[in-house]
Amino acid sequence: MPRERRRRRKDNDDTKAQVIPKPPTYIKRKIPHYSILSDNELSIIENNADTILEEIGIVFSEDEESLEILASAGAKIDGDRVRFPRGLCRKLIQDSAPREFKQHARNPEKSVMIGGNNMVLAPAYGSPFVHSLDKGRRYASIEDFRNFVKLAYMSDNLHHSGGTICEPCDLPVNKRHFDMIYSHIKYSDKPFMGSVTASDRAQDSVNMVKIVFGDEFVDSNCVLISLINASSPMAFDATMLGSLKVYARNNQATIVTPFIVAGAMAPVTAAGVAAQSLAEGMAGMALTQIIRPGAPVVYGNFVTAMSMKSGAPTFGTPEAGHMMNISGAIARRLGVPFRSGGGFNGAKLPDAQAGYEAANTLQATINSSVNFNLHTAGWLEGGLCMSYEKFIIDCDQAGMMRVSVEGVDMGDNGQAMDAIREVGPQSHFLGCEHTERNFKTAFYMSDVMDDNSFEQWVEDGSRDTATIASEKYKQILNSYELPALDSDIDKALLDYIESRKSSFEDSNI
Amino acid sequence: MPRERRRRRKDNDDTKAQVIPKPPTYIKRKIPHYSILSDNELSIIENNADTILEEIGIVFSEDEESLEILASAGAKIDGDRVRFPRGLCRKLIQDSAPREFKQHARNPEKSVMIGGNNMVLAPAYGSPFVHSLDKGRRYASIEDFRNFVKLAYMSDNLHHSGGTICEPCDLPVNKRHFDMIYSHIKYSDKPFMGSVTASDRAQDSVNMVKIVFGDEFVDSNCVLISLINASSPMAFDATMLGSLKVYARNNQATIVTPFIVAGAMAPVTAAGVAAQSLAEGMAGMALTQIIRPGAPVVYGNFVTAMSMKSGAPTFGTPEAGHMMNISGAIARRLGVPFRSGGGFNGAKLPDAQAGYEAANTLQATINSSVNFNLHTAGWLEGGLCMSYEKFIIDCDQAGMMRVSVEGVDMGDNGQAMDAIREVGPQSHFLGCEHTERNFKTAFYMSDVMDDNSFEQWVEDGSRDTATIASEKYKQILNSYELPALDSDIDKALLDYIESRKSSFEDSNI
Repeated sequence: MPRERRRRRKDNDDTKAQVIPKPPTYIKRKIPHYSILSDNELSIIENNADTILEEIGIVFSEDEESLEILASAGAKIDGDRVRFPRGLCRKLIQDSAPREFKQHARNPEKSVMIGGNNMVLAPAYGSPFVHSLDKGRRYASIEDFRNFVKLAYMSDNLHHSGGTICEPCDLPVNKRHFDMIYSHIKYSDKPFMGSVTASDRAQDSVNMVKIVFGDEFVDSNCVLISLINASSPMAFDATMLGSLKVYARNNQATIVTPFIVAGAMAPVTAAGVAAQSLAEGMAGMALTQIIRPGAPVVYGNFVTAMSMKSGAPTFGTPEAGHMMNISGAIARRLGVPFRSGGGFNGAKLPDAQAGYEAANTLQATINSSVNFNLHTAGWLEGGLCMSYEKFIIDCDQAGMMRVSVEGVDMGDNGQAMDAIREVGPQSHFLGCEHTERNFKTAFYMSDVMDDNSFEQWVEDGSRDTATIASEKYKQILNSYELPALDSDIDKALLDYIESRKSSFEDSNI
Repeated sequence: MPRERRRRRKDNDDTKAQVIPKPPTYIKRKIPHYSILSDNELSIIENNADTILEEIGIVFSEDEESLEILASAGAKIDGDRVRFPRGLCRKLIQDSAPREFKQHARNPEKSVMIGGNNMVLAPAYGSPFVHSLDKGRRYASIEDFRNFVKLAYMSDNLHHSGGTICEPCDLPVNKRHFDMIYSHIKYSDKPFMGSVTASDRAQDSVNMVKIVFGDEFVDSNCVLISLINASSPMAFDATMLGSLKVYARNNQATIVTPFIVAGAMAPVTAAGVAAQSLAEGMAGMALTQIIRPGAPVVYGNFVTAMSMKSGAPTFGTPEAGHMMNISGAIARRLGVPFRSGGGFNGAKLPDAQAGYEAANTLQATINSSVNFNLHTAGWLEGGLCMSYEKFIIDCDQAGMMRVSVEGVDMGDNGQAMDAIREVGPQSHFLGCEHTERNFKTAFYMSDVMDDNSFEQWVEDGSRDTATIASEKYKQILNSYELPALDSDIDKALLDYIESRKSSFEDSNI
């Protein structure tokens, strides 16, 4: 039987010349969309959302200005409760919100398209703790923050620098946004997110990107995307509304996201969660379009199911996958970009639980045609902790996600009938011309998964995945080089920060 | 803000009466199918498969009888190479092979439907090694085999006892099939698989189920399903053909499976793999229908991509997902049940790699509408090793797969408008009537994933997933009780085994 492996011909110039192309700066989905619900069923949910908006309404808490803006567009105000005539929110959104938009990076080659058939992968967001194998679990610092900005910058598979990758807990709460925004600009050249924890911090974010991009450019282009969570059920708070207004007025993108632990902030059923989320999301998105028609806005979705045993949020579950899929289909029908997904899990270590739960959610992300995937890499412990090792493993998964959604080559090379004819029965494809022509690019090659034999693995030190990732993140940080930044811009940023920081006292509120 | 948690009312009789139903004995898919290729693209692959069958042909190695059978149906024989006129194989299959069929279990309540919109989950198959945290990696024994039969029997989420769950390496190769078949019958009452390593071992498998079910019942009903691998590329060997013929003649189900490491046994492209696999699969399936029209037959698919660095097989990759999805769509168009999927991974431990890769493949299984999912639980190390701990974790994932494919309740209870009206803005759903009515069944509750807080997790012993699973499999084995088996049948089986075992010498071939 001719089953022995033929050595690759070393004199094959075509093979030598084959170049592995760098992954693109964002992903274009070529496989079809998938909806677990029919169009009729999606209409039922949209109808229920309209009923919620008309009959129950949404609270816009402690924000007179938002109430006035909404009233001006035809909403009915009753105290802080806002009710919307059927179809009003949808019309406001569909009249002006873009289906897709470009978020500019300071390196124009790294700008991304958000919406349509595009997928942008960003790191995890918001954890107060970090974890590494060497040092264990601890409060995050600005050094950790910079490290993750660098790791995201160095990954070909992440397209975005994210926002509050982790909380720099060693800096005062009311000033740390300066250091975070500066770190995104200084240590990366990918697009990033603005601060939302107070309206003046949102304005600082806008002012800082104006230093980088210029006032006029920022007014007519999206350079920031920022996360506005609803205060589910059926409410927005003044902090989030304040930031939403700053970004909308400045023509910057917001992601209006009902943040839902199903069973606590919404019903325990997927169709119920979807209707309530859509009502909340449409109310917030409509507000952006009244403030500034055409301001980019994304429908966000963050859903976990509550453990009915302990009350804890759960991750990587089938119900959360259903909810994501339904909201993705609804976003496509509404005609706005969709944010969801991530490497969610409730594990305390980058172990098997982390792997199963994160992979389940990342696959749901693909199935839900997510456009902006926050929390792609690093997420551990229900979002409370950012893991150095898991960040590396998730970046590898992000590379696989690209291959998944880019689909299959159905051209002659993909059909490979020449190879099948050349090889024939009972032989092998190892050295055939088609394999030689394609072998460098045929398959996504992981750099953290160990596919070697048991014996080789033992010889290499019997390392589990986390150990391999631990070595890898240090290598990446060691090889990191600062991207070029105009020294005048750098100085202007530092001057702005110094001036603003000295204008008010430190505070941890 | 009314965010405090309300205690569940203890006097609520409805809540107390709510019963958690046992999972069904197999899964009915209610979500739509998903194909990454269009109908036109699938036709191209089917056309290429016909070209392979017509022009290149399939080798039926060292089996004159198969060649004669195929010739009788119109195939062209040239030595051991068989070429099929376009459309012949498809016609033979579609004329008589059932779209779905029942595999009977000795406990009628555990019979399963294979094909159509049904999904049956079976344990992993074929590994010579086992692994547990306590004892490490070692050759599998008949005791391990029995343990895994017991664990599969005890899992509500596996529907099938499988076949060679692991190789009982402490028994002679030519006699271990007796002990495996007996163990499936004695220690479980779920359906199981027959031996395929020699035609007389296949016949022993049939003879033993005849003792359990009776000769007539077996001749007119499927009680065995068995795994027939092609010897890809484009060949079948005499051993597999011998077993195929035994099972087809006895009206028992076969799974005709091209076993492909893409890049070695097939081209490196998904469309090429799909066409070659279909040609191989159709040739083998057609043979079963000539031998016994109407004998149940399943189109099997086992594809991994070869590492282009090391030559090792890789798992949980996007390309393997593409290949599975295409073959699933093709099986639906052909009108035969589809076997694929599993908790594939190349990890040497039940670690993060095992989790990511297994979950990626299990999600692909869902996306590919797999009907018979071999290798659902336990698979480690590219199939060389059966892990006790991973078996437990995978069974939990199997429970989630059921919830995934059962889809979403779009009735009034699912829409939950009563709950949304009852709760309203800025409150919570923890104690509302709808939550109380649904909380026991609302969400799949994992029994191995730890969703507790970090502090609680530390208090519980800082256990990783594998450690939790290690405790759990021992608990399950300790609580195992033998299912009832008629003592006459038991004695007849033991007599048959004794008589057959003493009729020939032990051998390890």
